[in-house]
Amino acid sequence: MPGTVKKVCAVVGIGPGNGAALARRFAADGYAVALLSRSDGASAALAQELPGAKAFRCDVGDAASVAAAFAAVRESLGDVDVVAYNAGSGIFGGLHDVTAADFEAAWRVNALGLFLVAKEVVPAMSAKGSGAIVVIGATASVRGTARSTAFASAKGAQRLLCQSLARQFGPEGIHVALIVLDGIVDLPKTRQRLPDKPDDFFVKPAAVAEVAAALVQQDRSAWTFEADVRPFGEKW
Amino acid sequence: MPGTVKKVCAVVGIGPGNGAALARRFAADGYAVALLSRSDGASAALAQELPGAKAFRCDVGDAASVAAAFAAVRESLGDVDVVAYNAGSGIFGGLHDVTAADFEAAWRVNALGLFLVAKEVVPAMSAKGSGAIVVIGATASVRGTARSTAFASAKGAQRLLCQSLARQFGPEGIHVALIVLDGIVDLPKTRQRLPDKPDDFFVKPAAVAEVAAALVQQDRSAWTFEADVRPFGEKW
Amino acid sequence: MPGTVKKVCAVVGIGPGNGAALARRFAADGYAVALLSRSDGASAALAQELPGAKAFRCDVGDAASVAAAFAAVRESLGDVDVVAYNAGSGIFGGLHDVTAADFEAAWRVNALGLFLVAKEVVPAMSAKGSGAIVVIGATASVRGTARSTAFASAKGAQRLLCQSLARQFGPEGIHVALIVLDGIVDLPKTRQRLPDKPDDFFVKPAAVAEVAAALVQQDRSAWTFEADVRPFGEKW
Amino acid sequence: MPGTVKKVCAVVGIGPGNGAALARRFAADGYAVALLSRSDGASAALAQELPGAKAFRCDVGDAASVAAAFAAVRESLGDVDVVAYNAGSGIFGGLHDVTAADFEAAWRVNALGLFLVAKEVVPAMSAKGSGAIVVIGATASVRGTARSTAFASAKGAQRLLCQSLARQFGPEGIHVALIVLDGIVDLPKTRQRLPDKPDDFFVKPAAVAEVAAALVQQDRSAWTFEADVRPFGEKW
Repeated sequence: MPGTVKKVCAVVGIGPGNGAALARRFAADGYAVALLSRSDGASAALAQELPGAKAFRCDVGDAASVAAAFAAVRESLGDVDVVAYNAGSGIFGGLHDVTAADFEAAWRVNALGLFLVAKEVVPAMSAKGSGAIVVIGATASVRGTARSTAFASAKGAQRLLCQSLARQFGPEGIHVALIVLDGIVDLPKTRQRLPDKPDDFFVKPAAVAEVAAALVQQDRSAWTFEADVRPFGEKW
Repeated sequence: MPGTVKKVCAVVGIGPGNGAALARRFAADGYAVALLSRSDGASAALAQELPGAKAFRCDVGDAASVAAAFAAVRESLGDVDVVAYNAGSGIFGGLHDVTAADFEAAWRVNALGLFLVAKEVVPAMSAKGSGAIVVIGATASVRGTARSTAFASAKGAQRLLCQSLARQFGPEGIHVALIVLDGIVDLPKTRQRLPDKPDDFFVKPAAVAEVAAALVQQDRSAWTFEADVRPFGEKW
Repeated sequence: MPGTVKKVCAVVGIGPGNGAALARRFAADGYAVALLSRSDGASAALAQELPGAKAFRCDVGDAASVAAAFAAVRESLGDVDVVAYNAGSGIFGGLHDVTAADFEAAWRVNALGLFLVAKEVVPAMSAKGSGAIVVIGATASVRGTARSTAFASAKGAQRLLCQSLARQFGPEGIHVALIVLDGIVDLPKTRQRLPDKPDDFFVKPAAVAEVAAALVQQDRSAWTFEADVRPFGEKW
Repeated sequence: MPGTVKKVCAVVGIGPGNGAALARRFAADGYAVALLSRSDGASAALAQELPGAKAFRCDVGDAASVAAAFAAVRESLGDVDVVAYNAGSGIFGGLHDVTAADFEAAWRVNALGLFLVAKEVVPAMSAKGSGAIVVIGATASVRGTARSTAFASAKGAQRLLCQSLARQFGPEGIHVALIVLDGIVDLPKTRQRLPDKPDDFFVKPAAVAEVAAALVQQDRSAWTFEADVRPFGEKW
């Protein structure tokens, strides 16, 4: 166990959007950041950029991979104080467009992965009597639509898992919170797909990270479980 | 394809409670009832009792089993007009009590199974422009608690899948509905576990089946997606 | 007190749509129907048409009027067994379009009126240990939009009043239920306003009345509090 | 119109708990704080304590009083940039305990008052293209119980009014948000009523004010409409 005095934040699911913004934000807030992602691309570059950050390979839908990644995190950075769970692919399509394999894959990344990660981090948090798990949800967390057969089901599974965890571990000092993100994140690929939308249309990843950081900083006499987040002009 | 003139109702998940009651009710309403369950026990006896009913082995969490069972249903009874989806085991316990295998098993029975069944029955319903899928949910469909880590996540996955299906296929004349059952079903085993509770404490399976039948009979100008159901004395 | 053996249903809010359909349906189900409305027009004609029905003037937003109307109902028909609460004007518009008087008027009809009616009918229902109050809500019961400043606030007030009543009086055998009507009711005036919509677009009042009647008939081991209702093709 | 450069925050509903904490917090954040309350007691003392703060008499349930108070605020401090709406009495009791006058009074303070205040402050906010209205709700905002006949109905009216305002004015740059406070606020009177509860049981007003301040500071690409707040040990 290293002699680090920094608190540790594990950001699970690193991409160019929310994952990177969460990592930057928690690094700026003084955390040693563990960057967990399936591939090395984005997280290796981030690990270079952020002092004290380290990248770890992790396929959240695979129990052995999660166990190995968190063992490595503990070994090199120490016990995890904060998890920002950002893993969550969006497979869109109706019943006929989605295979059983797609349906399962969505659930693995969004729900099973969170379950496995919670198994890894909760014991040390309970022992300390503090910790936080902030999960990035989506409108699909609370609403199934004709085109979100797999995604909404997976996000619905994730949301009620979050509620169960929040109710079970709140009294032990662990803050579990869900951000229900209602809007399109500002990313190179979403800009390309929606070239006519103004800047104001998009959710800025740094703003999402700010919401996550504010949740982690809440006094424990006033914890939020669920907060929706959307751009000011969003129709909802 | 048989020359039957009876409409076909597939009851998925046969036990001594809601499954049997749903089968009896739809048989009484004139349906040829397909009894799908993992084991033969309860469904074989019911198949004897109910005229025109037939039992089929089906493990709803297994794609091949679902495909085989519904092929057999179509072969012997014809296309399915109504599904009453009652499969749904209740694995209770907090994060530390539930294994990843338990967590997955709950999802397979409650969510993946419904997805696979929908894949089987929706095409013929769409072709006819009518059909119904009524799903038996639970309080855990809308609320995760400290002791429902696996069950609530699975039921949450099921609920938003139902919503997606309802929104996608309503316009094609397929009525997808969810009954959110808030209470303890009257069964030999629940009576044994709660010997001091009065009759009034329990949900009667025949009354749940009545709610399901009423949903199926709704005029398509006034369809209910979600209806909660609880005993009159239930604290909620 | 008359020697009537018929059960009594008070339909509050009589118009050409749901009010008339509820009255017809409960009359067909064998109830002596009290038709309560602010003006005499529709209810006088209905009282002629339906055997055993009687019209009563009632301004639900006015305590004295409600007290007088229900005293008259009790005097001529007996204690009320079922209330179908259909009063509820729809004042639409944003903040700048709606006056404080509009805002208050919407609340009086939708929320205060239900409170006053409950005060009148609950004591006899409690004494009998049975009774039902079915309330016709709207999408605005669960969702405020830019154009429903007054209406959604009034319907939100009504919905949580319904919940309070359901929780308080369920254990006494009184079934309080809310129908969340999501769609445009089929009426001469809505047809005129939307001449291009097909028949399928509209909610048929008789179908809404059927849902209300089914709620009233539910076995008390399986009561629904809230049921949404919409035409099969409705986008939601 | 004064030459003030400070932004103006109107705290509506000043008591020893959340109202005072909101005032202190927004004063600390650099706002000129207008303290609006029915009686002078708490707000006069606060106005002394907080630099730039001023007390105003306002009965939020009375249109003329609201108009006069906000005219005075504008006259002495300038246009309002932020409203923290904390007015909201809690009349508890079941249907038989609550009079029609109680039922109306609860609605006036919680719902009509917010409507009247919005009428006063929105035009200037729209003109600037920015502003915030943060409302202090309660569990009763989303749930009616046997003992909250009047309070839940009033809070339900308030919540859907908030939603309507949020949807209408978000696109104009006005952030309307609702804090759903689930817990007992730490006050002399609640401590006296619950002498055996530990410190941890109570919601700290300063922590609620922190949540409100964080909402006001959110980047407009990531606005929260609704955030629940409860002490970490709260059973929910």
